[in-house]
Amino acid sequence: MDDYHVIIIGGGAAGLTAGLYASRAQLKTILLESMIPSGQAYMTERIENYPGFPDGIAGRELIERFTQQATRFGLEIQQFTAVDRVEAAGEKKVVHAGEKRFSASALIIATGAQWQKLGIPGEEEFTGKGISYCATCDGAFFKDQAVAVVGGGDTALEDALYLGRLARKVYVIHRRDQLRAQKILQRKALEEPKIEFLLHTVVKEIRGEGVVKTLLLENLKDAEQKELAVSGAFIAVGQRPNTDLVRGVLALDDIGYIITDQDCATSVAGIFAAGDVRKKGLRQITTAVGDGALAAAAAERYIEVKT
Amino acid sequence: MDDYHVIIIGGGAAGLTAGLYASRAQLKTILLESMIPSGQAYMTERIENYPGFPDGIAGRELIERFTQQATRFGLEIQQFTAVDRVEAAGEKKVVHAGEKRFSASALIIATGAQWQKLGIPGEEEFTGKGISYCATCDGAFFKDQAVAVVGGGDTALEDALYLGRLARKVYVIHRRDQLRAQKILQRKALEEPKIEFLLHTVVKEIRGEGVVKTLLLENLKDAEQKELAVSGAFIAVGQRPNTDLVRGVLALDDIGYIITDQDCATSVAGIFAAGDVRKKGLRQITTAVGDGALAAAAAERYIEVKT
Repeated sequence: MDDYHVIIIGGGAAGLTAGLYASRAQLKTILLESMIPSGQAYMTERIENYPGFPDGIAGRELIERFTQQATRFGLEIQQFTAVDRVEAAGEKKVVHAGEKRFSASALIIATGAQWQKLGIPGEEEFTGKGISYCATCDGAFFKDQAVAVVGGGDTALEDALYLGRLARKVYVIHRRDQLRAQKILQRKALEEPKIEFLLHTVVKEIRGEGVVKTLLLENLKDAEQKELAVSGAFIAVGQRPNTDLVRGVLALDDIGYIITDQDCATSVAGIFAAGDVRKKGLRQITTAVGDGALAAAAAERYIEVKT
Repeated sequence: MDDYHVIIIGGGAAGLTAGLYASRAQLKTILLESMIPSGQAYMTERIENYPGFPDGIAGRELIERFTQQATRFGLEIQQFTAVDRVEAAGEKKVVHAGEKRFSASALIIATGAQWQKLGIPGEEEFTGKGISYCATCDGAFFKDQAVAVVGGGDTALEDALYLGRLARKVYVIHRRDQLRAQKILQRKALEEPKIEFLLHTVVKEIRGEGVVKTLLLENLKDAEQKELAVSGAFIAVGQRPNTDLVRGVLALDDIGYIITDQDCATSVAGIFAAGDVRKKGLRQITTAVGDGALAAAAAERYIEVKT
């Protein structure tokens, strides 16, 4: 079994930043990542709000730069179909991946989260071409255009209000008669003249040519269908953290996010969480790199003082 | 008086990231900064641990890129000799700078912090050329070399332990007979064979040619002087947050850092703090950009819901 100071699980912005910091601090560090790159940043066509790239940068290129930088300082990266199991009980944490086992004094979980999909025709095809799961990330691309938000919770209405400041028109499409969002957000959204609600309505299909042109809607009361012309749609029906691996090992919140303190320490000494997988207020590359640095520094302190 | 959605004070990594996020969210935003750029990042010769730049980047260039990116989305920047006063009592926050006054619904303080200097000959001349105030930032430049750490607190010993993993030799120079650091750090440092303590000793002068070559030391017990050959010295005698402006307005900790919650909210509703000025565990560009994004998102939510 190969022994390390630090094992990082997850090769997105948070994991690679943790890897950069830990390797640069001369800690023997390995990062285990999925064979198929699937981080939120990697999948993003154009990122405008990671500071340092005034003209924006493709997510794929940014993550490649992160990888190059971290490996330059000695970070070892191994790819697996899946990381299967984490043993947290002993002094050394043990990670099982396929037939391999790795041990380390400290473990950083940076496995990210996934947006819930609608699972309808056109959704995958037009992702990054009008379909987005993050208004803060992509809203600015739709200045003065008509867009839709799909969902009825806090995130959906926050997205609608955000988009209300820049888009020409915002449709909020929700399958139920009532919104789940906090009353104050509902009131604000109702006050905003650009926002129009289409309740008891679902999106059946996303249509376009190269980019999104229309949404095929169905009214659930009378089964009537119509096409709605929009340049983009923001799907805000929830997010699922990738925490199956640590369920029963670490304290999670109701949705499944890992609960940490301000320094990214989890409920188990020596295990840290960074990035979208962590319970926190804002999931962005900026906050992921902040987390990655924090988790690596906390792991380093843990190794210095506790072991 | 010019009215804004958001006023940001401070033009470093945290302030500019907050400016990027707030402007991109179509909030009318102004950033007030010092006439003389003096942020920690700006002053750093070469930054290796901000992800995205595999070969490193000059601090000045990085901050220029941040500025270009934020202004591209409409951030207004004005420079002042000093920002004089903040009025936090009313519904609108008011900022006085010279003869100008600005009002806004939300205010983000990103005024940073300064390392305490020794104030000795050679210190300024060799900053960035062997003299550093941050082992996490610059330690990796001194691999397999002899370095000194000046100070006797937690930061000094954490720096010494960090450097012990990569340098050939680490001298800890402290003016008193006893260290102030936690016992556990003292024990760890004493156990590390590369670390040597020079107590009741001060640095009188930093000498070199282009880069640091030696430190002139004085033993405070017998006034004897000697030269110590090192490639670098890390000054760890404390940091001072730039919070004179908000003293009496916001809750500060003993040292003067602004106390916030996880979302960068201060003790006053509608005022947020981001970056080195905030009480937190790690002060890096990575954590500053995380804070900047968080503070802008929190300000946006505050404006949407509370005003």
